[in-house]
Formats: sequence, C-alpha cells, structure tokens
Amino acid sequence: MIKKVPLTELKNRMYNFRKQMSISNPEWEIAVIFSKINLYYFTGTMQDGMLIIPRHGEATLWVRRSYERALDESLFPSIEHMNSFRDAAKNINVLPDTVYLETEVVPLALYQRFQKYFPFKNFKPVDPQICAVRAIKSEYELSLIREAGRIHQHVLEELVPEMLQEGMSESDLATKLFSVLVEEGHHGACRFGMFDTEMILGNVCFGESSIYPTYFNGPGGKYGLCPAAPVLGSRDRKLRKGDLVFVDVGCGVDGYHTDKTTTYIFGSPLPQHAIDAHNKCVDIQNEAASMLKPGAIPSEIYTTIMNKLDSEFLENFMGFGNRKVKFLGHGVGLLIDETPVIAESFDEPLQEGMVFALEPKKGIENIGMVGIENTFIVTAKGGECITGYNPGLIPVF
Amino acid sequence: MIKKVPLTELKNRMYNFRKQMSISNPEWEIAVIFSKINLYYFTGTMQDGMLIIPRHGEATLWVRRSYERALDESLFPSIEHMNSFRDAAKNINVLPDTVYLETEVVPLALYQRFQKYFPFKNFKPVDPQICAVRAIKSEYELSLIREAGRIHQHVLEELVPEMLQEGMSESDLATKLFSVLVEEGHHGACRFGMFDTEMILGNVCFGESSIYPTYFNGPGGKYGLCPAAPVLGSRDRKLRKGDLVFVDVGCGVDGYHTDKTTTYIFGSPLPQHAIDAHNKCVDIQNEAASMLKPGAIPSEIYTTIMNKLDSEFLENFMGFGNRKVKFLGHGVGLLIDETPVIAESFDEPLQEGMVFALEPKKGIENIGMVGIENTFIVTAKGGECITGYNPGLIPVF
Repeated sequence: MIKKVPLTELKNRMYNFRKQMSISNPEWEIAVIFSKINLYYFTGTMQDGMLIIPRHGEATLWVRRSYERALDESLFPSIEHMNSFRDAAKNINVLPDTVYLETEVVPLALYQRFQKYFPFKNFKPVDPQICAVRAIKSEYELSLIREAGRIHQHVLEELVPEMLQEGMSESDLATKLFSVLVEEGHHGACRFGMFDTEMILGNVCFGESSIYPTYFNGPGGKYGLCPAAPVLGSRDRKLRKGDLVFVDVGCGVDGYHTDKTTTYIFGSPLPQHAIDAHNKCVDIQNEAASMLKPGAIPSEIYTTIMNKLDSEFLENFMGFGNRKVKFLGHGVGLLIDETPVIAESFDEPLQEGMVFALEPKKGIENIGMVGIENTFIVTAKGGECITGYNPGLIPVF
Repeated sequence: MIKKVPLTELKNRMYNFRKQMSISNPEWEIAVIFSKINLYYFTGTMQDGMLIIPRHGEATLWVRRSYERALDESLFPSIEHMNSFRDAAKNINVLPDTVYLETEVVPLALYQRFQKYFPFKNFKPVDPQICAVRAIKSEYELSLIREAGRIHQHVLEELVPEMLQEGMSESDLATKLFSVLVEEGHHGACRFGMFDTEMILGNVCFGESSIYPTYFNGPGGKYGLCPAAPVLGSRDRKLRKGDLVFVDVGCGVDGYHTDKTTTYIFGSPLPQHAIDAHNKCVDIQNEAASMLKPGAIPSEIYTTIMNKLDSEFLENFMGFGNRKVKFLGHGVGLLIDETPVIAESFDEPLQEGMVFALEPKKGIENIGMVGIENTFIVTAKGGECITGYNPGLIPVF
C-alpha cells in the first residue's frame, strides 16, 4: 500500500550528494540533515530525527519519532531509534571540527541542543550542495513531476472554468480548488523554502486582488483571508462580471511539485491593452522555454529576454508598482522555490533533468495580473512543457 | 474592510513584553523579532521584515516586503521600509553586546546575514518571554478564540455527522471538512511552533489510522496522504461500517486557534471496552478542566490526574504502544502548541486569561484512538469550555 522511494534512487541521491560535497570541499568530514524535506529526499521518509552522513562510512538515519513509521516507509539501509541526541552521539567515535548543516533551516536553539551532545567547533552550510543535487531530477522524479503536471493541467485548464460562479468569494474558489486538486491526486501541501513562508494552496484572486501586495517574493499578489492568515483568498471579494481571475497554485505528487498560473476572463472581455500585455507574456514564456537546453546559462536567458523589453512594457512587469521580482522563473521540485533561478548571478549551465517554472506576468491597473506560468523540463530541444499549452485568459461567459 | 488589531492591544502587548523582559533580565538592551507570528502579535501585520525593540526608546517595524500592506493592515506607530538590513542598521547608534532573538525560529543563516549588519557579539533566547506574554490572552484575544470555538463546535458536533458517507476516503473527509471550516469562518491555517511541523488541517482518521505512528508529538496518529506528505488523510482508507472516526483539527479566527477532537461511530456500535475507555477519558477531561483556575500549578494537575490512573488504563493512554506523550493538555493561541503545557516541570501558576486544550486519549487495538479534546479558558470557577459539550462517540447510523 505504501509507495516507497526505490532503494536505487536513495543510493544515487547519496552518491551524488557525496560527489557534490567533495567538489566543494574534498576535506569535508560530516554532514547532518534535520529538515523533513531533505530527510525525505535522502531516506524516503520524513520523521523527527536527523541523518548523519560521514564522508567515510555509512550514513545513518536517527529517528526520535516515529521509528516504526520510518521502518514502514523507508528502504534506507541504516535506520536507528534515538530517544535523544545522546543516543546518536554515543555512536560517533571521533568528532571533526566542522559539521555541514542546513543553515537556512536549522534554528539557533536546535543547533545549540545538538551541539550539547555533538560539540563541533563550527558549522558550514550544506544548503548549496543539496540544492545542486536536488536540482537535477532522475527519471523516477521526473515521472512524479509529469504526473503532477498532468493533474495541474487538467484541473486548471479544464475544471476551474466550471467552478467559477458569479458571487462566489475568492475563498470559496480556493477551498473548492484545493479539494478538487487533492481528489485528482495532488499531495495536499504546497511547500516553499523561503524563511517562514506559508502558502497552503497559492494565489487565488479576482480582479485587482492579484496586484495587492503580499510578503511573498513572487510577481503576483493577493488579499488572502485576513492579516493574521494571508492564505487562500478573501471572503469579501466576490466574483463579478468583467473580472480577470488569476489562479497561481502548486500541485504535487509524492512530494514533487509543478507550478502553474492560469488566467480566466469572467463574464465579459478585458480591454485590449490588457490582452496585448497578456499575449506578450505568453510569447516571453515560450521564448524563454525554447532556451531551456543543457548548457544554457540562466543569467543569460534572463538578460537576453529582459534586454529586449521596452520601458513601457517593463512598467509593472514581474510585479505591480515597485514590487518587482528580479527573476523570470525558478527551479521546482520538492519545494516550489528551488534553484537555479532564471535571474542574474545564476551562471552555472543548465543540465538535463532540471525542471523550471517560467512565469512572465504583468500588473494592469484596476484589472489585475495578466501573464502565465508553466513548468518545463530541460531537454536538448528546449523546455518541454508538462503543465499544458492553454495560453490563458480562458473565457468563462 | 481590513479588520485591524486595535492600537491599545498592540500597546498592551509591547508593555507586557517589556515588563517580562525586565523580570528576566533588568539589563536587557534590545530584542529583534523575525517570525511572522510574533510580528503579527506585536504589530498586527505579518510581513517579511523585523521588529527592533530597544529597552529604551520606540520599537520599529522594518519591512522589506510589503511595506504598503503593513501600512494598510497595521496601527503600529513606527513602520519603516528597508531594502536590506543595511537600511535598518544605519538607524542604530550604539550596539549592545547581546541581542535577544527567537532562537527556536531564526535559522543559522538568517542570523549570519543579520549579524553582518548588526554585529552583536552574542544572542540570548527571547522565546520564553514572548511565550509567557502570549500565554495570557486579553479580552480582545479571548473574543476571537471564543468565535473560533463556536465555529469549531458547530462544524465538528453538528456538521461532520452529515458529511460521513460509507466508502468516502479520509482525504475526501479532510478536504470537505477544510472547506466547511473556512466557509464557517476558520482562518484557513493550522499553525504549530514545533520545528518543521506541517499540519494544514489536523488528523482525520478512520479506524486504526488514528493509532498509526506519525512524527507529530501528539497522542493521536494518522496515515496522511503519502510518505512525502503525511497531511490530510489517506486516499486508500475508505469509511466502513463499524469504523471509529477520529477528527482532531484546529480552527482559527484572525490568527487565534482552538483545538478540538471529536469521535464518531459509523454504522455500528463499538465494543464495550472501547466505550468504557472513551468515557473514562471524558471524565478525565472534565476533572482536569475543573482544576483550570488561577493559581493552580500545571505540573500538579498533571500528576494529580496521572497518579489516580491504574496501570491497565495507562496502557496506550496518551499514545498507542510506546508512542506516549507526556502531557494532558497544552496552551493554545496564535499557535496550537503553546505553553504552558499540562505536564511535569511546568510549575508556574495558571493565570486568568490563559487558554488550554485538554486532550485525554487512549489507543484501542484494531479500533483506533478514543477520547476527547476541547479548549478551555482559565476562570475562577475552573476551565470554561468554549468548543462544545458533546461527549463524543457521536453515533452516525
């Protein structure tokens, strides 16, 4: 009944990680993984515990809770139970000076509790090495991402138009959409790596809501439910004839996400300048997608596209007003916001098996955010779209 | 349209925090808040930024994104825009040696980025002081919690029985329940402070699923959707006649949660030993609730109750098999897992305005988890239940 991550996958991931570590520092000695996402990546189960990876010798998953569930779910060869860090510390004979940790995730207090039993002198970040390994998806991972893309396409392109009803609230659409996504196979979570970022579903916006500012570092905005929980959508904003509907949500299968934005026009057509801006965004997506080939440089894709755009179009492009984001797309996988990013300073060449969401979008005053987003696999022929080909502004009349 | 946290609330919270800080260290100089939950608590808005609280002088909320939304939502007197920490650092003239930080939340890398511009020599935890202040709810906060309790009661006691249909999956019930909770006024999030804990809704379990182990530190278990996303409920486990249904979910209004567990018996009665165990849990809840008075000591409530239970009843009480948790209840508020906890070593007396969830539960082999959970306000007459009086095992035949 439990769909387990195959052992060969786990072995390859560990092999690739060790290789990446040795590239960044041939003298590395030990890495310790705490985050549930990376525990899942390396072991196929996400429990409360830690994975100790020494450069020499076998890696061990130490589980505080639940050890039984870890054994049920994971094919990882070495899983041990611990009541506290003390139990695991007993098994380490010689402690090197430096430990590699997920510094973007591990809180100061957790590090202090860990250090009490593992008195490392200092720590270094293991985040970049793990990101680099996770960026390149295996065939197994791609098959899950393709399945997420299929569900995503079906729900956003085919089912959402039937859900839109005059007078419904954004939150009505958001919860309905969430239910349908899960029913169709979505894994129910929408995960981001950015510090303290909560999303649940994504942005579900009617009209001007999609250009209302949020803390989230993306081109679109949203009202959300309330200041205390800016999630889902507004209860007060009801769907009206003439509204642009903006749906930017994640979908996932067995941990692996796709990212997709679809727009709809409800009840009556948009003004021509909004349609023109939208179509231009679709062209930009397609042009960027054609460049998603092994060897291409993300920063060059970004500047090639951006340099062609005139100042009039750049106004409100990738964010309304001064809320612009400085990227055109981003890696997708176990998290929706993975690296590489299609942005300046990402200068390492693309590789086969990388997956990107491209999301050119432009804010239109009093109307909302037009544009598009789809998820692509890097191939020798350019990005292969796995979330559908509908150009958006789907009419619902 | 935007429901703002009143200025008097914000002022009182800051006053209480400063008082708490001075109790713990009269020489404290500066605290810096990063987590969205605490930013919301002190300022009424949750943005990407930080709140700098000096012992002398005004506190300032520095917002990276979105400054405009912060101004829309918050009545906090001092809100400034920053592009980076550098902008805020310019405004600090003299830096003390020590900064108080949310060490349970702030990741190592965020601290390093912060320290680059704010070169404090060391940090101390501000988590206990904030928890102590947040534990005592104002009338304003209690009114929101009461409203969450009203919705919680209505949905779990009155609406869930109508949702249960033979053959539906746990995930069907979970998404349906999520939609209905939001429709009735729930704020859509279910927040925990424990490291890297993802919940979305809570535990929705049919039969033995509620004793299946999870990483979550609570008495109940659940299958969840899949190893990569142990959220919502299982797609495979369908509701059958004779199932015990276990629903343990959070509900919230404007950030403030209640916590409640209701059980249902579907199609046919449970064996008498399960009913007896359930009733005993209800009695324990009511007995513990009667002790929730100002001045009572949480650890004494815990030991008083636990010492009366015989070894036969203690088997699988508060967790199936070896998965017992060592508490009977916990504080609730902006997070579902707040302090104080009704457990050993919580020796500070209760105060008026504290809010607790009490959750005596017992695992029954092959049947699932019986027991109950409700949320109570500490009053001179004992805990006032705000999530309903239904004793559970609601028959749905």
